[in-house]
Amino acid sequence: MIKAIDHIGIAVRDLDASMQLYSSIFGVTTFHREEVPEQGVAIASFELNGVRLELTAPLHEDTPIGKFLASRGEGIHHVAFRSDAIGADLERLHNEGMRLIHETPQRGAHDMQIAFLHPKSTGSVLMELCAPAADASHT
Amino acid sequence: MIKAIDHIGIAVRDLDASMQLYSSIFGVTTFHREEVPEQGVAIASFELNGVRLELTAPLHEDTPIGKFLASRGEGIHHVAFRSDAIGADLERLHNEGMRLIHETPQRGAHDMQIAFLHPKSTGSVLMELCAPAADASHT
Repeated sequence: MIKAIDHIGIAVRDLDASMQLYSSIFGVTTFHREEVPEQGVAIASFELNGVRLELTAPLHEDTPIGKFLASRGEGIHHVAFRSDAIGADLERLHNEGMRLIHETPQRGAHDMQIAFLHPKSTGSVLMELCAPAADASHT
Repeated sequence: MIKAIDHIGIAVRDLDASMQLYSSIFGVTTFHREEVPEQGVAIASFELNGVRLELTAPLHEDTPIGKFLASRGEGIHHVAFRSDAIGADLERLHNEGMRLIHETPQRGAHDMQIAFLHPKSTGSVLMELCAPAADASHT
């Protein structure tokens, strides 16, 4: 089951400049920084009422985020939803006829297992399902 | 101060079709429905861990959401942040040199006072500040 909004992913070109911008709007002083080579991204994130805002920059141009920036520019990239049974949710959505970008979970930031649904099936909203890696093995 | 993510606004063409889609993904059975003529929108929203997903359709083409759909198509439209002092936050952001779409709060859905920041100042993320109407008069 999908239980919660986990984070909002925002595509940015320059992580340092974006951290400065978000600091000035939200008064954030501390960001979680991480590189996820599997997804080709470097992220800086912070939390508001249990939901992360995740600034996401490409590690190189030939990545999904690099291509998004090239075609659409900076902006909101995806919304991620926390599942308590990501494997079962992916199977359910697949059986309902939904296109999935990842049929099985991949490694994401924050030690999470993640999978993207295809925006063709979600009204052009790029949706990610995610679950803590420790949980995902049981689903 | 900006305290929380209040909702994610998603631009949709057909509210009924979108409610059916979101029901099948999230198992939602009840939506809050509302028309906000001041913003030219009809909305259907539901909540996940205290954050609303707000499906937003235009009441007619010549509205901000109507124009967004015409130029960009369906998809994530904005992120709204809950402020405990919306007037003071708008003044602070204006003083920091940020462009505002609304310099003073307007009436939004859910009996909220709302104001949009200009995406030129926010890395192309359309951000809304909002506060319950009962609070906003004190700020």
